[in-house]
Amino acid sequence: MSFESMWAALEPVGRDPRTGGYRRFAWTAEDDTLREWFAGECAARGLDLTEDRMGNQWAWWGDPDRAAAEGRPGVVAGSHLDSVPDGGAFDGPLGVVSALAALDVLRARAEHEGWQPTRPIGVVNFVDEEGARFGVACAGSRVITGVLGPDRARSLTDADGTTMVEALTRAGRDPQMIGRDDEALRRIGSFVELHVEQGRALADPDHPAHGHAVAVGSGIWPHGRWRLDFPGEANHAGTTRLEDRHDAMLGYATAVLSARRAAERQGCLATIGKVAVQPGGVNAVPSAVTGWLDARGADEAAVRAAVADVAGEAERSGATLTEESWTPPTTFDADLATRLQRVLASRTAAAGGTQPHGIPLLGTGAGHDAGILANAGVPTAMLFVRNPTGVSHSPQEWAEADDCRAGVTALAGVLEDLAGERA
Amino acid sequence: MSFESMWAALEPVGRDPRTGGYRRFAWTAEDDTLREWFAGECAARGLDLTEDRMGNQWAWWGDPDRAAAEGRPGVVAGSHLDSVPDGGAFDGPLGVVSALAALDVLRARAEHEGWQPTRPIGVVNFVDEEGARFGVACAGSRVITGVLGPDRARSLTDADGTTMVEALTRAGRDPQMIGRDDEALRRIGSFVELHVEQGRALADPDHPAHGHAVAVGSGIWPHGRWRLDFPGEANHAGTTRLEDRHDAMLGYATAVLSARRAAERQGCLATIGKVAVQPGGVNAVPSAVTGWLDARGADEAAVRAAVADVAGEAERSGATLTEESWTPPTTFDADLATRLQRVLASRTAAAGGTQPHGIPLLGTGAGHDAGILANAGVPTAMLFVRNPTGVSHSPQEWAEADDCRAGVTALAGVLEDLAGERA
Repeated sequence: MSFESMWAALEPVGRDPRTGGYRRFAWTAEDDTLREWFAGECAARGLDLTEDRMGNQWAWWGDPDRAAAEGRPGVVAGSHLDSVPDGGAFDGPLGVVSALAALDVLRARAEHEGWQPTRPIGVVNFVDEEGARFGVACAGSRVITGVLGPDRARSLTDADGTTMVEALTRAGRDPQMIGRDDEALRRIGSFVELHVEQGRALADPDHPAHGHAVAVGSGIWPHGRWRLDFPGEANHAGTTRLEDRHDAMLGYATAVLSARRAAERQGCLATIGKVAVQPGGVNAVPSAVTGWLDARGADEAAVRAAVADVAGEAERSGATLTEESWTPPTTFDADLATRLQRVLASRTAAAGGTQPHGIPLLGTGAGHDAGILANAGVPTAMLFVRNPTGVSHSPQEWAEADDCRAGVTALAGVLEDLAGERA
Repeated sequence: MSFESMWAALEPVGRDPRTGGYRRFAWTAEDDTLREWFAGECAARGLDLTEDRMGNQWAWWGDPDRAAAEGRPGVVAGSHLDSVPDGGAFDGPLGVVSALAALDVLRARAEHEGWQPTRPIGVVNFVDEEGARFGVACAGSRVITGVLGPDRARSLTDADGTTMVEALTRAGRDPQMIGRDDEALRRIGSFVELHVEQGRALADPDHPAHGHAVAVGSGIWPHGRWRLDFPGEANHAGTTRLEDRHDAMLGYATAVLSARRAAERQGCLATIGKVAVQPGGVNAVPSAVTGWLDARGADEAAVRAAVADVAGEAERSGATLTEESWTPPTTFDADLATRLQRVLASRTAAAGGTQPHGIPLLGTGAGHDAGILANAGVPTAMLFVRNPTGVSHSPQEWAEADDCRAGVTALAGVLEDLAGERA
């Protein structure tokens, strides 16, 4: 049950041997294997495992209901085990494995050094964080916080036409059970999600944060997804004169390039990484092309302006733009972030390291369950572990073993501080 | 067994109720239904049905082997019954149904007017003409003429990873049987494929061919397919700085627009109608994009120049271009074409219509089994039936009932002339 043995157990699950990337999608056989693994780890530690109404898994050391009733709700760490298509090994699992490893550190301290928490400590495995299958990211936390209504969640459909109702049923769950779960939320006094950094701030020699293995999260950029539907007319590619064509691909291609230019102009990020073509034959003029635009940035107005630029260009091709999701800026609890910085700095200082004010505070463009909980009013923080490649959502995603250990140490310190607090 | 009843029987097979388009792919349940239908029509007429080594269906009125041995090989009409994804009703089936209807006309003449053919008359249903499933068009005629080797054919794979070997086996066929079939080819003295026009020459008031319901084919433009592989690096769309990205979609989009410009500049056709993206997530920077370029034109040099233009642009994005197929210009038998024009003109003139030299001769950018047979040395001709929309490979593909009847009359006249010829 060391960090290394947990990591080794997860390593083969859902890995595509051709790409080395992971395909761990919600409510699939791979997901089931991962959930069983999590349940096994909790059972081996004698933790109480509960599931909320959406099937997120919560393992508790201590009685979270009694503690919540007594005004000292629990301290929770964790993340998710699912992946994007061909995802990396760290996005999600690093947070779950580090939470279990940090709990082991604290239980050893309780056993051998007499340390006793005043609050229960929980470890969570959120389901369907990436939204890779049903298109809505953070579905697990969105449903239990009520941000995603159960009717809409149930009607979501995957690429094969399977609805979430069908997927839940096949996974042996009751789809009528899903919904907001205040009982589960009431147990959470604070939530800390450790995550591999998705960027190179900690690894970039030119960045002020360089030199640290771990940073504290400040918040999540505003971000959204838009669907762009380009109309056309199906026709034979070998016989239809250019002037008689209405080729939906031309508008799409123009939009791809305009999204990049708009992002450069507005100083934000814009990406078109998914496309669907009808009829999709080599010898057929496309009758319809759908592209999905992902846009994010530190500045909400800049993101909105970039999307408006792309929409204007797309509309000149007759396209329609539909907002599929929009998440306003998320600011994590500032007091909690400062507290985490102080805890990390004091431990680093005790080890002869950097000064307290030196622990970096980083924002991110990636959505997380931590953001959903923060917006639902849970005091929430994140820890980022250095990623030498800066790459994420790809097999190149990486964290060195020493940095993973530093992450566990940091998380254990933070949990010790938060769970040792008097009510 | 009238044209109308045959058409009505085919109408529902493989039709997608959402789009109104057809999905009739080789060696599927829909294909099997269509083959059974063809066999039933032949049985009802007392024709001998044979299959060649690739499973193309040949129905004969008269003994083709004896006739071939006596130096008077048969006259064959027909086309195919499979479709592109969301294809129209006419591309393929019009040629098969018209061939059966024309045969009925001639058999009635034999019964009631004492006309007797000197050559056997055959009707063919070619398999897998569109190549919609395994990516190689005219697979049925390519295999029996030896243009597509059996090993390569067997290893072709559909989008689900099913090889042609597996598809043939599931369809109850022996994949080791497929290959060049000289016995089948020896029976064909000449081949006439009737096809809906894929373009608006006959329907366009400004075109010299306007006013005719039927035209004679002159040949098939040179045409080819190229695969363009754009490299990139997978990364998180929400966290990766623009300057750190290698987004494969940008090169692809540039190539789509450059293909259109190159076609305009060179006076030919170029289309990118199919694309595949890795990993294909909304929040992932594409690590690889593959686009397929289809290019054709009356002038071979112009097509080659357009492809070179696109290749040059794509190579600037680091892409590689692979030629998947190339078919040089096909010229149908000029004597046979002139003979068909004369036959059609004399019949039209007998009905008080247009002058002999008025029957239009049209080239096409679409590949056909007729082109494969022509290149294999079979005297081959095509007839095109007016299409008021000009649209093909789409549910909008159309031919008026009167024009379909004119097509049958024209084909019957041509077959009567060719099959009445002395050896």
